[in-house]
Amino acid sequence: MSKRGRRGRAPALEFVAGNGLLDRRALLRNSIVFAGAMSAGAAGALTGAAAEPISGAPLTDEAWSLEFGSVLPPQQTPSAFEKDVVRTLSNPKGEFRNSHARTPHHLLNGTVTPNALHFSICHCGVPNIDPAKHKLVIHGMVRQPLEFTLETLSRYPLVSRMAFVECAGNSAPMFSSEPMQVTAQAIHGLVSNAEWTGVPLSVLLDEAGIDPAAKWLIAEGADAQFLDRSVPVKKAYDDALVAIYQNGEHLMPGNGYPMRLLLPGYQGNMNVKYLRRIKAVDQPAMSYFESKTYSQILPGGKTWRFHFLMEVKSFITQPSFGRTLKEPGFYTISGVAYSGTGRIAKVMVSADGGKSWGQAALQGAIQEKAFTRFVMPWRWDGQPAVLQSRAWDEAGNVQPLRAEFVASRGQTTKPMTTPLAFPNQHYNSITSWGVESNGEVKHVYA
Amino acid sequence: MSKRGRRGRAPALEFVAGNGLLDRRALLRNSIVFAGAMSAGAAGALTGAAAEPISGAPLTDEAWSLEFGSVLPPQQTPSAFEKDVVRTLSNPKGEFRNSHARTPHHLLNGTVTPNALHFSICHCGVPNIDPAKHKLVIHGMVRQPLEFTLETLSRYPLVSRMAFVECAGNSAPMFSSEPMQVTAQAIHGLVSNAEWTGVPLSVLLDEAGIDPAAKWLIAEGADAQFLDRSVPVKKAYDDALVAIYQNGEHLMPGNGYPMRLLLPGYQGNMNVKYLRRIKAVDQPAMSYFESKTYSQILPGGKTWRFHFLMEVKSFITQPSFGRTLKEPGFYTISGVAYSGTGRIAKVMVSADGGKSWGQAALQGAIQEKAFTRFVMPWRWDGQPAVLQSRAWDEAGNVQPLRAEFVASRGQTTKPMTTPLAFPNQHYNSITSWGVESNGEVKHVYA
Repeated sequence: MSKRGRRGRAPALEFVAGNGLLDRRALLRNSIVFAGAMSAGAAGALTGAAAEPISGAPLTDEAWSLEFGSVLPPQQTPSAFEKDVVRTLSNPKGEFRNSHARTPHHLLNGTVTPNALHFSICHCGVPNIDPAKHKLVIHGMVRQPLEFTLETLSRYPLVSRMAFVECAGNSAPMFSSEPMQVTAQAIHGLVSNAEWTGVPLSVLLDEAGIDPAAKWLIAEGADAQFLDRSVPVKKAYDDALVAIYQNGEHLMPGNGYPMRLLLPGYQGNMNVKYLRRIKAVDQPAMSYFESKTYSQILPGGKTWRFHFLMEVKSFITQPSFGRTLKEPGFYTISGVAYSGTGRIAKVMVSADGGKSWGQAALQGAIQEKAFTRFVMPWRWDGQPAVLQSRAWDEAGNVQPLRAEFVASRGQTTKPMTTPLAFPNQHYNSITSWGVESNGEVKHVYA
Repeated sequence: MSKRGRRGRAPALEFVAGNGLLDRRALLRNSIVFAGAMSAGAAGALTGAAAEPISGAPLTDEAWSLEFGSVLPPQQTPSAFEKDVVRTLSNPKGEFRNSHARTPHHLLNGTVTPNALHFSICHCGVPNIDPAKHKLVIHGMVRQPLEFTLETLSRYPLVSRMAFVECAGNSAPMFSSEPMQVTAQAIHGLVSNAEWTGVPLSVLLDEAGIDPAAKWLIAEGADAQFLDRSVPVKKAYDDALVAIYQNGEHLMPGNGYPMRLLLPGYQGNMNVKYLRRIKAVDQPAMSYFESKTYSQILPGGKTWRFHFLMEVKSFITQPSFGRTLKEPGFYTISGVAYSGTGRIAKVMVSADGGKSWGQAALQGAIQEKAFTRFVMPWRWDGQPAVLQSRAWDEAGNVQPLRAEFVASRGQTTKPMTTPLAFPNQHYNSITSWGVESNGEVKHVYA
């Protein structure tokens, strides 16, 4: 039977969970017949179908079809109509403090974060590094200290892989005792996903002849803070890279140009940018970021020390805060899921605030420690709905429910007004978007 | 046994083919021990090791480590030191003819082509389309003509996938009777690879109720040429998308903003940009591009009509023309392979102009009809070498050798001076880079 022969024979669409969630099998290739199946199946007629029936009136030839267009540029940029698809900045005037640039997840799709929009955090601004002068030194407990330049690293066999990088403080607004009415960008914009290409750190350590007694590496950046973090040698021999390309081109200045440490699945701050030094040692440095910022104090008074792993997580990007559904009918619920442990195994979606769940379809090649896009067909009936997603990884880890999470990790006593309030680390619980009967999407806790 | 415990126990590196090609198994995680294995193994000492031994002298603090850096921008761009990593333009003044912008493959790595550098060909410049006014109409042999906007398409379940797009005229300089001394960008710059997200065309055709007697679709763009191509309905029900996102963000203006047809593995020109109309019909349109430009005349006088498939192909990007190896020693041979038929199965590399071959390592998730990065370790002894790659796909198709290809497909009678000379279509044979004893890399035929 030809693939085409399958047309029209898809099973009728069925609801799989409350408030209009449809069976993801409707998304299997060649089995979606919205107009037909949706009017015949349990989902009923496709009220508010996205497509507009037309009576065959001719297309209008708009201005852009009637004139010669502009010149192709050496480096192309998005359409002027996409001018709002930008990173939001916490320090736009470059004051003498740290600065954040957040990825606009609510305006993106797929899994790759374009380099222009990859999140950045810099503690002393963006250094302007000359790659011909920048050096990486590996020293300490090694047989032969070595130094590398961008040019010499380029001669090594390079590994390419997709990986997310997430700030441990990403999603900090979720610790607020009341839901902050802000976009997915403001809440979750400190995680991005890219294809990184670089040299396995293990290769460089072996070449230097690391001492088996060395258990830690102190990685140091060349920015004005000389940001340093301690990294277990074990991670270096697992999957650490010295990355020199990001989505095919050399690293962005805000992401570590000309070279950075990439520790797939570990908190962003450890993925030291502008990497200039790796010192093999037998104990951690207890540097500023590991002994203060990223030592999360728990409600019971204990502290997480060296809690490096970014755990399984997901959030819905469409629809999300700031969007207004203009009419009842068919929509797609879509978002990203990822885990520092490995591959995403499953994403469940709820449209009734967690009372019932349906399994979402996963898109594309599902890769370790990288974004996976999930998609769930949904028929909105115009009544209030609460949309949630919950991810599982291949090791069986699952996103905690919010009540569980808050009980163990705490929240602020007053509504948060700035995402910099504490506690603010390693939020990986559920995000809920409330769709009101007028179509407005709000941030809610459920 | 811990992963770390494997250190130092990798098998000694071995040559697998002439002129210094090394066993790709050296690249398996945790098994590369260059300094140790290479001095003990068949490959001998790592003459010209990429790393520089140092005596523990302190790092110099460069200017960028001693001052506060610049402000993070809303959309980041590459470092000023990467100013030469740009597309090359065939029509930089926007004269009243077509224009090409070629991807700088010799300066990129990994598999994703950054959106700024994705190749473009426009026949009437780049149209500046208002997505609020642009419409896609599906009509002809359908039960109910429909129209769609960017906003309505966004409500459908979107599919995300990696795919290359390649102009049928890519690599045209390879038809020259003498090798043109130009970069991989000039030769192969009309292919790029991205993650595309869009609506399966089959969903839209089913919703319109396509007549089973319709065998072709005429796809038309909204640029001033109203570029139109005939597409088999069968392809629509295989894997065609109406793409609206490219590497996570909306399409680039030079790549079809706000929507384009994506026909994975089919010649680029058919992937109609600025898509405004799909008409279901029972025979092809015999439009300009399919009846003239892309009807390749073969040496025997016959013509390929509707030769849509871009066949299995690979080329080496590093080292390649324009690069000079500064000393004998260890290097990596790396490039991209892809096939319009499916996944890449294998890439073989030669350093002696095809006399002997070794199998390259393939990087990352190997995906259908998308770039796969191959990597081959190589020890250059300072003597002349000729580097080649040859790819196989999962269906068993293989890149033809140049002699076979020229015999069946022809070449120019005089050396080509412009890549626009004919014959110039569907080159998928081998590219050879000659490394001279002074380290210069030339384009050669072998």
